[in-house]
Amino acid sequence: MITLTTDFGYQDPYVAEMKGVIFTINPEAKVVDVTHGVRKFDIRMAAFILASAAPYFPKGTIHLAIVDPEVGTERRSIVVESNAGFLVGPDNGVLMLAGQNQGIEHIYQIVKPQLMLSKVSSTFHGRDVFAPAAAYLDKGMTAQEIGPELTDPVTPTYAKVKRTGKTLSGEILHIDGFGNIITNITRKEVGTQRTLKINFPKATLQTVFVQTYAEVKPKAPLVLIGSHGFLEIALNQGNAAEKFCAKTGDSIEVESA
Amino acid sequence: MITLTTDFGYQDPYVAEMKGVIFTINPEAKVVDVTHGVRKFDIRMAAFILASAAPYFPKGTIHLAIVDPEVGTERRSIVVESNAGFLVGPDNGVLMLAGQNQGIEHIYQIVKPQLMLSKVSSTFHGRDVFAPAAAYLDKGMTAQEIGPELTDPVTPTYAKVKRTGKTLSGEILHIDGFGNIITNITRKEVGTQRTLKINFPKATLQTVFVQTYAEVKPKAPLVLIGSHGFLEIALNQGNAAEKFCAKTGDSIEVESA
Amino acid sequence: MITLTTDFGYQDPYVAEMKGVIFTINPEAKVVDVTHGVRKFDIRMAAFILASAAPYFPKGTIHLAIVDPEVGTERRSIVVESNAGFLVGPDNGVLMLAGQNQGIEHIYQIVKPQLMLSKVSSTFHGRDVFAPAAAYLDKGMTAQEIGPELTDPVTPTYAKVKRTGKTLSGEILHIDGFGNIITNITRKEVGTQRTLKINFPKATLQTVFVQTYAEVKPKAPLVLIGSHGFLEIALNQGNAAEKFCAKTGDSIEVESA
Repeated sequence: MITLTTDFGYQDPYVAEMKGVIFTINPEAKVVDVTHGVRKFDIRMAAFILASAAPYFPKGTIHLAIVDPEVGTERRSIVVESNAGFLVGPDNGVLMLAGQNQGIEHIYQIVKPQLMLSKVSSTFHGRDVFAPAAAYLDKGMTAQEIGPELTDPVTPTYAKVKRTGKTLSGEILHIDGFGNIITNITRKEVGTQRTLKINFPKATLQTVFVQTYAEVKPKAPLVLIGSHGFLEIALNQGNAAEKFCAKTGDSIEVESA
Repeated sequence: MITLTTDFGYQDPYVAEMKGVIFTINPEAKVVDVTHGVRKFDIRMAAFILASAAPYFPKGTIHLAIVDPEVGTERRSIVVESNAGFLVGPDNGVLMLAGQNQGIEHIYQIVKPQLMLSKVSSTFHGRDVFAPAAAYLDKGMTAQEIGPELTDPVTPTYAKVKRTGKTLSGEILHIDGFGNIITNITRKEVGTQRTLKINFPKATLQTVFVQTYAEVKPKAPLVLIGSHGFLEIALNQGNAAEKFCAKTGDSIEVESA
Repeated sequence: MITLTTDFGYQDPYVAEMKGVIFTINPEAKVVDVTHGVRKFDIRMAAFILASAAPYFPKGTIHLAIVDPEVGTERRSIVVESNAGFLVGPDNGVLMLAGQNQGIEHIYQIVKPQLMLSKVSSTFHGRDVFAPAAAYLDKGMTAQEIGPELTDPVTPTYAKVKRTGKTLSGEILHIDGFGNIITNITRKEVGTQRTLKINFPKATLQTVFVQTYAEVKPKAPLVLIGSHGFLEIALNQGNAAEKFCAKTGDSIEVESA
């Protein structure tokens, strides 16, 4: 099975071209969209989404992730191999959050022209380089056959949560489509406080720590541990990110109140 | 075959996580998206879309519909069984319009932990409860094995069309992406008037009753029976909902003119 | 394999209804979305997207394209047969750019009621006429069985590139989701100039001709040959169409500078 995560959107032929290439090489392939709605050029957003979705797929799944502002330059094309399966994409960090979660075993560099389309454009390696590599892996090629091993992948640094007295400092990993604010603070770090004070860059709130959205009134704020295990600030049936002017990458402080 | 109807949108990992769970349980599953573009928390919109699409799928199809503002509370998780197949989702009415059209035979409550993911979050039952249930049904489990029968499902009431003299009173069921205004008035109720007067809450129009959009000039208004058998107000190649300030749930009056 | 290209969007049941019809007729069908995000009623945009995507699909693929403002009128329903496979849709030009690229062998008119749904609406032939035809072709029916041959298809005229001295005059074929401006000028026509002057209707720029986006600074303009072989004006990690007020169909002039 091959999954796709891109910033190509839903109104261009780009995603379909990748699928056409995959099915031409491997007519038996099963292709599943993760999302093509990543904000254009936002490598960290794609990395978060891929790392969130990957654990739910069967062992051996090949995840293709293409957010590739440096396509056509010297940036390398890689396959990350782990016990869980394969990650295929540019060497710009987009694969590494999922890779680190899975436990990286080897990284190989895609270099062999015979694994690429016969004419490789300098602007669309998703179609010309990465889709063929994924299709060949899906067809049974081993990762070693991809190319030489690579040991210095580009690895983005993610902020670590810091504790100072009763205050946890973290950052916002993702704003989801509901406007829920997903932080990098885990269940273990935040403990079982019943009331929390949250400092956003442009807003402050004091609110209850609950189990699920509907425990508070519609449009009221709340804090809970979301479905990926991270502290999340939300409004019941409302958009918390809009209300608190919060965006991905913002720093955030959480205090026992 | 399993279909998916949700309000999860197209830029988050949520839909992919559900698909990953389904394919992990049943690698042979065929999964088809109905839409993930339901307005957030709009149970009636999801119910209308599911009820519109379901009749076109093969017998035995399992339709999963997740618009679930009360996830994690006491609201129940159900499987609706009919001669047409299965409907799986929260017991909040989202399944019931399709269910009533198909003819409900039994409703079962999903309660067995062994049918759920090992760790059930309190915020994402689409992934942790409903996707597994659909996958097991798709793999051949019978609905009786799901859990105890339930006889008091939450059933939303849909407005009935009323006639007063020459006036039919109904409501707007759905505004589609073209801006076409779909009402709950059927072909039989409206008859074969050649000219109709339509009263929206904020606008009035008198227009011809035609067979298809292109019978009037571009941007001109028209009334016809749409592809689901309901009276529809449209502009030829234009957006009627914007022009007449119409929205889902609005009441509407139709008079012979 | 059947692909779908429509202007139906992502929030209505229409696409799913077509898929349900296909799977009911041919449970073994493999259906791939090209896009449902074509601008409403924009036949040329759909034609461009289909023509871009089609060459990457396996031989024998059936491409269904539905942008159909004249549905229900006298406009004809057709199947285009070529060595590459089949194109199915309304006879309004939406299929003809892909058809001309593939080399049209025969065009057949869909007329037999037994190939359509039992009740054909006058507003949704995608579901009632075209989806069944595609499904039967996918199941092995020959194109001749579709209906009588047709020799006068509606063929839109696409502007040809003209040269006047050092100036090429062309038009904008498509603005993609990144804001990249794709013209109808090919690599061969533009040659290997190092610096080009571009005249849009509302803006002018002089810029370098590069191989890939990241050769210039972020947000700086550039010209390159895009992934479909056409001259493209872009900003590195920015939106060129917004910056230069460019839109599909605009005329454009390119001069050696």
